[in-house]
Amino acid sequence: MSQDKVLLHHGSGGKQMHELIRRVILPRLSNPLLRPLADGAFLPYTDELVFSTDAFVVQPIFFPGGDIGKLSICGTVNDLLMMGAHPEYLALAFIIEEGLALPEFERVVDSIASTARKAKVTVVTGDLKVVQKGAADKIFITTSGIGRRISRGRLSAGNVEPGDSIIISGPIGNHGMAVLSCRQGLDMELRIKSDCAALTGLLLPVLRQSKGVKCMRDPTRGGIATTLNEIAAAAGVGMRIRQKDIPLLSQVGAAAELLGIDPLYLACEGNAVIIAQKKYAPGTVSLLRKHPLGRRASIVGEVCASPKGKVVLTTSVGTERIVDMLSSEPLPRIC
Amino acid sequence: MSQDKVLLHHGSGGKQMHELIRRVILPRLSNPLLRPLADGAFLPYTDELVFSTDAFVVQPIFFPGGDIGKLSICGTVNDLLMMGAHPEYLALAFIIEEGLALPEFERVVDSIASTARKAKVTVVTGDLKVVQKGAADKIFITTSGIGRRISRGRLSAGNVEPGDSIIISGPIGNHGMAVLSCRQGLDMELRIKSDCAALTGLLLPVLRQSKGVKCMRDPTRGGIATTLNEIAAAAGVGMRIRQKDIPLLSQVGAAAELLGIDPLYLACEGNAVIIAQKKYAPGTVSLLRKHPLGRRASIVGEVCASPKGKVVLTTSVGTERIVDMLSSEPLPRIC
Repeated sequence: MSQDKVLLHHGSGGKQMHELIRRVILPRLSNPLLRPLADGAFLPYTDELVFSTDAFVVQPIFFPGGDIGKLSICGTVNDLLMMGAHPEYLALAFIIEEGLALPEFERVVDSIASTARKAKVTVVTGDLKVVQKGAADKIFITTSGIGRRISRGRLSAGNVEPGDSIIISGPIGNHGMAVLSCRQGLDMELRIKSDCAALTGLLLPVLRQSKGVKCMRDPTRGGIATTLNEIAAAAGVGMRIRQKDIPLLSQVGAAAELLGIDPLYLACEGNAVIIAQKKYAPGTVSLLRKHPLGRRASIVGEVCASPKGKVVLTTSVGTERIVDMLSSEPLPRIC
Repeated sequence: MSQDKVLLHHGSGGKQMHELIRRVILPRLSNPLLRPLADGAFLPYTDELVFSTDAFVVQPIFFPGGDIGKLSICGTVNDLLMMGAHPEYLALAFIIEEGLALPEFERVVDSIASTARKAKVTVVTGDLKVVQKGAADKIFITTSGIGRRISRGRLSAGNVEPGDSIIISGPIGNHGMAVLSCRQGLDMELRIKSDCAALTGLLLPVLRQSKGVKCMRDPTRGGIATTLNEIAAAAGVGMRIRQKDIPLLSQVGAAAELLGIDPLYLACEGNAVIIAQKKYAPGTVSLLRKHPLGRRASIVGEVCASPKGKVVLTTSVGTERIVDMLSSEPLPRIC
């Protein structure tokens, strides 16, 4: 933070964002419920609830496989699921730029409605603000959600221990690549669709039936590289992953190579990283594979005692490299 | 909606906003919990909870008497109180424009922290996005909140009946006039401060002790004129209010006259409209007056059977006029 300004990379989900949060937010607002900085917070009511919020600023607002409306529902539904909760109620706050075409707004709300219906969540309250032309970019949506915890215990990075298995529920990087290809005008050629999906159907059976699940995260901004680094840092453990086992669509891999981007850093919006006790991991993978969104679920690596806080990738050619948290080129407004 | 675009007045809290919500949102998302379109929604958990969300886009972000950080806490805390709930947990989502000075961001978070501390609410989760320069205006904050209902029954406009008394807890229009004077560069001359305040201390005693409270609303965008019209429409009743009884600071009245604005339409951010059974109204006013923020609480009028859905003002000179919902000049980004 050499320049005393908030910069694009502060919002990219990687190192600089964590630094900004640790420098500005935590010293002022820290409390035991906020401190884990997870996808949501546990609220100690009679029913144990989970509370989560996310602002969606994706650009463009319509992209292959989704739009800001669908994303704004899936993102928060998935965050609740990652905390082990059954997603139930959502609140939506719209910030709209003056001049947004009404049919575009209607299309976004249509998408919100059909996604919420499929994910079986209810939008119970909301807000709508309009700002002058140029004071926002078309439409931003903040979705907050509440769900009831159904996982046996509280899922948390703090539960993760050496020996645990790392599972990824589906092919990585589709969302990030779909949005990027759209921005580059390559969407017609590459035909890559965002994986944007509410994971309710995929993950409720895991939350209800799987034993040994310790932590779940959706690898959005910063991709699985950043998510695994966050878990490793929080748990004080190392992670070893194998490139050959990480599900990746060939066209996403090819496009990433073309654009010089590591797919490990590309956002996923319909994918879960699941850390499970080793003996229960194969059962969890079988359960995931029963659902269309989990057909390619795989165990991609193991948690290890060292190197602490680091993620080590064994590449397809057998070499090893450290996979750091996203810290280079920011990919702004990917979600 | 002759032009097929979202326009500034769609966000002003008045007629056009209601029209937009009824045309775009309700047909797609309506359900029994959303339908009342109140300041929040009741969630049927074992503890009855209230869930509320608000996007804050005020411009300028620092104004006399407050800033966007303070406002973003007070606004949601007050919405929860209006629903009869004890505000407990908040979630904050920041959308920051690239280039925001870090000291400004720190000042906003300082203000959030001290306001939350005073209002005894805990920020438990959040999100932070950064968009390119020109894609937002400095900083937008969406605050969602959860509280536990402590009012005897559910407060709702639907409870309001002819014969009930209309109470206003403090002087009207201070927030709207403070922001406007600041925009006009008149803040040093007019020295009007926003009333921006969390009403927890003022209203918890009312929620706990007052009998006969039927409905509470905070008259933000569109002012008390719009709030009273909303209640009148929802309850299918008329309202009669007396100008002479409506608390108004002389400098706010003078500035409103100077700028040609009716203070009834100016946003309040530390004020409550309370509809109470007539026999209990004086007791509620006495209770309000015990608190510094309620010193000027007054009964300003009565609910009547007709004219249905209308608000009639008896002016200080004894004439009568219909006070409509805000529908003219929008005052964008007042909160």
